Amino acid sequence: MAQELDLSEYLIAPDPGATRLTRAVQGVDHTGVATTIRVVEERPLTIFLNAQEIVTAMTIGDYPAYLALGFLRNQGMLRMGEDISGVDYDEELETVVVRTARATDYEDKMRRKTRTSGCAVGTVFGDMMEGLEGVTLAQTPVRTSWLYALSAKINRTPSLYLEAGAIHGTILCVGDKPLVYMEDVGRHNAVDKIAGWMLSEGVTAEDKILYTTGRLTSEMVIKTAMMGIPVLASRSGFTAWGVEIAQQVGLTLIGRMKGKRFVCLAGEDRLIRDADPDTVAEEPRKSGRKGAV
Amino acid sequence: MAQELDLSEYLIAPDPGATRLTRAVQGVDHTGVATTIRVVEERPLTIFLNAQEIVTAMTIGDYPAYLALGFLRNQGMLRMGEDISGVDYDEELETVVVRTARATDYEDKMRRKTRTSGCAVGTVFGDMMEGLEGVTLAQTPVRTSWLYALSAKINRTPSLYLEAGAIHGTILCVGDKPLVYMEDVGRHNAVDKIAGWMLSEGVTAEDKILYTTGRLTSEMVIKTAMMGIPVLASRSGFTAWGVEIAQQVGLTLIGRMKGKRFVCLAGEDRLIRDADPDTVAEEPRKSGRKGAV
Repeated sequence: MAQELDLSEYLIAPDPGATRLTRAVQGVDHTGVATTIRVVEERPLTIFLNAQEIVTAMTIGDYPAYLALGFLRNQGMLRMGEDISGVDYDEELETVVVRTARATDYEDKMRRKTRTSGCAVGTVFGDMMEGLEGVTLAQTPVRTSWLYALSAKINRTPSLYLEAGAIHGTILCVGDKPLVYMEDVGRHNAVDKIAGWMLSEGVTAEDKILYTTGRLTSEMVIKTAMMGIPVLASRSGFTAWGVEIAQQVGLTLIGRMKGKRFVCLAGEDRLIRDADPDTVAEEPRKSGRKGAV
Repeated sequence: MAQELDLSEYLIAPDPGATRLTRAVQGVDHTGVATTIRVVEERPLTIFLNAQEIVTAMTIGDYPAYLALGFLRNQGMLRMGEDISGVDYDEELETVVVRTARATDYEDKMRRKTRTSGCAVGTVFGDMMEGLEGVTLAQTPVRTSWLYALSAKINRTPSLYLEAGAIHGTILCVGDKPLVYMEDVGRHNAVDKIAGWMLSEGVTAEDKILYTTGRLTSEMVIKTAMMGIPVLASRSGFTAWGVEIAQQVGLTLIGRMKGKRFVCLAGEDRLIRDADPDTVAEEPRKSGRKGAV
């Protein structure tokens, strides 16, 4: 699959060979023949902020510290420049405790829960929308040649998706280079792990592009804006509210991106059309991601 | 699409023409040409159980009463045979209040939240797993001819998916007949709407088959078992925990069902292989559901 692909561009690439992330399961196929297939793991991870239990996420279980940090950041529970005094992961107890120098109390906030379209429990929509009021996204131009190059590279990158299916991917990119490729059973976990990595590494957001295999729902758009990333692209479709929020916050929103095709529903004025779509190869059928629906 | 399809088999079929469920949005395509596409709506719906606010779901907004009833039932907050004294939907306030004769108090339960792989906030996993302890599923045989017939009918049924994409479907079936086809931006909402309909109509579960376009995660398997339905089939893939729970509760679990292909990972002994897979037509490409990933 990856014959011409330079995986060294990645700072973090998927690890489809990791034995902890998939399991071989016995079954019987349509012809009645016994078969063994690889399926992704799904484990609980309970996230604490100081003494308060915040949420239990179902995750494949890689990068628990990034997941916890990114989730809390995207929920607005960690402030900009928050002084984080520790992140302790206990594999046996399946918990991560994020400690801050500041005392935190989100008891009240935790009472109002929003069950979002995509995933994510514990998302407090009102708060997230409020959090967005202060967000000004950089008006960063995006070359269509980058978008096509990114799609092609990401589709050809060895991944848990190609190995076992039933998983979503989110990739942090700069220009035509994918940098960090996170996967998870919950697509919002994949985004949160990216957010946690950016927070840990002090990475700037205004020059980045976020690519997701999942749908462009309100929550996905809000998370991207909370992370300060000005461009969100996906091979999947849109929801009306996702589009509305992207237009409000000045996010460039590109969806239904497959082969040469895409639709831009927000921030079209920042697209630089430097690639001829007719020179773009159609996708291999295996990239169809049907298994991850 | 539906030339030979008998939609009269459905008690509830999708309503892709309903103006309230999709919106036309202006955008620009890959060639730089202005384009209008239909996208699904996504609205908040806050569910109350008596005086207590339980959760806010993001939904397309059809069948709010079924969604509320089914969500509460699948969370174990409505007991078997619960005396429901009222279900009040307020369109303007975007709320549903479910009232029971019994006084309820889930304040404590609401403190522990689980963020699941698929979707769903407010799922309390421990409680759901406990709820499963009393569940004994009927050992209902399943004909492979039914599974193939159901797939073909469901793929050809006019739906919001075919109209706008970015949506999941769940279909309650009996034998080779699809009965109730629910769609939603959150795939768990679609299942909960089925559960709410079954509760409202007093429908038996042990002769039914549940078909979903989504992945077979732990939560999807738990919900199906909570509903008492002994067979769950999907065109998508599995997670390891989903398989494990299906094996524990005696659910017949069939995934990766596309054209003649499928894999059965639990309850294979209840499959009656009365269809020759080689006579099954391949799927039309449009059924690939890429847009709904």
